[in-house]
Amino acid sequence: MKKIAVLMCCLVFLTATAPAQEQAAGVPPRAKGQTDVLKLACPPIDTVRIAFVGLGARGTDAVGRYMSIEGVKVVALCDLLPDRVDSCQAILARHGRPAAAGYSGVDGWKRLCERKDVDLVYVCTHWQLHTPVAVYAMEHGKHAAVEVPAALTLEQCWQLVNTAERTRRHCMMLENCCYDFFELATLRMAQEGVFGEIMHVEGAYIHDLRWLMFDEKSGYWDMWRLKYNAAHTGDPYPTHGLGPVCQILNIHRGDRMSSLVSMSSDQVGLTAHAKEKFGDTSAYAKIPYRLGDMNTTLVRTARGKTIMVQHDVTSPRPYSRIHLVSGTKGFAQKYPVQQIALEPDGHRALAPAQRDSVLKRYEHPFVTKIGEIAKKVGGHGGMDYIMDYRLIYCLRHGLPLDEDVYDAAEWSSIIPLSEQSVLKGSAPVSIPDFTRGAWKKLNGLTFAE
Amino acid sequence: MKKIAVLMCCLVFLTATAPAQEQAAGVPPRAKGQTDVLKLACPPIDTVRIAFVGLGARGTDAVGRYMSIEGVKVVALCDLLPDRVDSCQAILARHGRPAAAGYSGVDGWKRLCERKDVDLVYVCTHWQLHTPVAVYAMEHGKHAAVEVPAALTLEQCWQLVNTAERTRRHCMMLENCCYDFFELATLRMAQEGVFGEIMHVEGAYIHDLRWLMFDEKSGYWDMWRLKYNAAHTGDPYPTHGLGPVCQILNIHRGDRMSSLVSMSSDQVGLTAHAKEKFGDTSAYAKIPYRLGDMNTTLVRTARGKTIMVQHDVTSPRPYSRIHLVSGTKGFAQKYPVQQIALEPDGHRALAPAQRDSVLKRYEHPFVTKIGEIAKKVGGHGGMDYIMDYRLIYCLRHGLPLDEDVYDAAEWSSIIPLSEQSVLKGSAPVSIPDFTRGAWKKLNGLTFAE
Repeated sequence: MKKIAVLMCCLVFLTATAPAQEQAAGVPPRAKGQTDVLKLACPPIDTVRIAFVGLGARGTDAVGRYMSIEGVKVVALCDLLPDRVDSCQAILARHGRPAAAGYSGVDGWKRLCERKDVDLVYVCTHWQLHTPVAVYAMEHGKHAAVEVPAALTLEQCWQLVNTAERTRRHCMMLENCCYDFFELATLRMAQEGVFGEIMHVEGAYIHDLRWLMFDEKSGYWDMWRLKYNAAHTGDPYPTHGLGPVCQILNIHRGDRMSSLVSMSSDQVGLTAHAKEKFGDTSAYAKIPYRLGDMNTTLVRTARGKTIMVQHDVTSPRPYSRIHLVSGTKGFAQKYPVQQIALEPDGHRALAPAQRDSVLKRYEHPFVTKIGEIAKKVGGHGGMDYIMDYRLIYCLRHGLPLDEDVYDAAEWSSIIPLSEQSVLKGSAPVSIPDFTRGAWKKLNGLTFAE
Repeated sequence: MKKIAVLMCCLVFLTATAPAQEQAAGVPPRAKGQTDVLKLACPPIDTVRIAFVGLGARGTDAVGRYMSIEGVKVVALCDLLPDRVDSCQAILARHGRPAAAGYSGVDGWKRLCERKDVDLVYVCTHWQLHTPVAVYAMEHGKHAAVEVPAALTLEQCWQLVNTAERTRRHCMMLENCCYDFFELATLRMAQEGVFGEIMHVEGAYIHDLRWLMFDEKSGYWDMWRLKYNAAHTGDPYPTHGLGPVCQILNIHRGDRMSSLVSMSSDQVGLTAHAKEKFGDTSAYAKIPYRLGDMNTTLVRTARGKTIMVQHDVTSPRPYSRIHLVSGTKGFAQKYPVQQIALEPDGHRALAPAQRDSVLKRYEHPFVTKIGEIAKKVGGHGGMDYIMDYRLIYCLRHGLPLDEDVYDAAEWSSIIPLSEQSVLKGSAPVSIPDFTRGAWKKLNGLTFAE
């Protein structure tokens, strides 16, 4: 009994403080003949035939946006609920497009993926189906574009990576925040050395979603988001905050996220809201929600940089993704107000006019090229359109995508890893190297042109 | 050898993941007959006879401020360097006050503490001397007011607590940021329930001190701050960020900080600055500074609240202490812009005029009473004056001080504990209960009147 106690003691210790070993243990070997898909390029596709799976709020918006993108054809539409398929067919009709093949029911997405005339499956379902649909699509020769988060478990992260590597298909997680205007400008500034060596970055998803999560009629289908948050702690939705700052840090393009610690406050906000809306004795008020009101996760990279990422969807706070970049020569922060500070006056934020002039000087080429139409088409102020445009542009030109399957796996992996850390009293947890060593091959992030 | 390895393994594990046990282990038993000093009240002092130790920038400012405070007499002045004593004597003379006894040299502060006609020793030396002087003062029957941080090691934290408990003397750490206007308003809002149940708070010390730290002529005496930062990692200066939010969370007045994790980025900023200022091959450029550019520490409390505190004195960034308060009914944040958001529109920051009206409505009684004169006297915009005023007011009326020795120990203990965590790869570290169980006796922070 004593021996077992000592052994357990050591095992827990290893988990808690020996990242290198745990990481090696947590990385499954690559199958024979399988190679990485860094900078994967596939034959150009003249007209990209798209099939949409999941036609809730987000999927319906996507179908709408694609009406403004050239070189695509919507060939199939799928949702559990047939009336949602009908609504999206109506969008096509309004734009004078031919009707798409419609699928509904629990297995509709499988039949859709099995079609021969689809190039790209665009997944906007609830979180739990993201990986299954993306994997099935790739298995059937399709490229996959999948809403955030791409995966919910480490197993799913590896499934995405291994399937993409084996099938040589693209798998892009649709991290739209990487395409927002301020984020793109700061990415360009980082790449041009304006911030010097960047040592610390921050991101967040702070968005009061209480009303939406408890809305039985027009909220999330089958209350899936509330159910997920009842069952999990940690940070269930880190990618909006992480994506842009990981691009800035060249994650898996010269650096990689190596370990994290995560801490959650107790849960109070969901229960308080449930009591207020449904009554103290309501079923919703009695659920033991596991998600803490605030989660903060700290990530260290192999090159000694730190990332702070936060999640709070239950507190009355102004929306924030923070988006903070701090280097040896400059600083930027997006929320709550856009700030830029540069040497030699780095201790002082630029006045708004100077700041805007810097932002204009470092306007990203994507914005220069399609910023105006993006704002017109919309989708979170235009970033969704830029994202879709770039996805289709790269597919049509046979170019590597801006965000690859390793981004999808790395950014999503914070979900299970932050939960692990919280459940272990904030103990350090290693982040697997999903590139299995290939992160050292690239020297910085580049977007194909 | 194997046995030792297993044992070490277990020891590290205990430190890393068994906060409760380590805490019990880290708390020395109270000496027989010694009791806590919560709400300590001492006999009123009609005219408070003050002796100042340490007359650098901060000490000189303090002497100047006390010229505007009633009921005090400056009886002694001490600094290592005699010319600083002379400068402060000149301040007294300019205000028509009698000259004070002057002390200088390495042991001047001891002789000062040994005087019979001193009520309060006010310590503004470099960090390393804070605890020695405060302890020596209490041992000699004086109350101690000591600049931040009050202590640098856990041993020093316990020395302060045990000395105060044994001698029944006050030991206040001069955490001035607790008296700033926005902080006081949010404290009142918290105490009146405006934020609902507060689940998460943030504080920071983000202040570009590179020029000052590398200034051999008019910077810190003997380059002490640079030397400390060369020798230590973690967060060496957490109290400005922590003080106000710990008051809001009622730390050791119904809750307590129970554990932390801390993560630092690598150090780059100090070396880069040293190279720029002194050349690539200069001695300063070759020092292996241990302080990471950015340190982030996450604290969990016994009641399930979280605190995030950051430290960065080497990056070009606008000054920030963050000061963020997030509860179930409202939100406030001071930096980079003052924001308040309240239910039922908690997702939206109040417009500036509404915000100011809320801040006026919850103006703290200290500000109402002496805010105007505080602004005139100055000292970081007035907060230093309010702090000094309150210290003297409480001593003159025989009241408990606003900040007690447990605040001093708790807030300062984050220095060694964050360093411990960083050196252990961000492993969780327990925070000792300096009240030895007494934190449950009080029901919230109150200021004596």
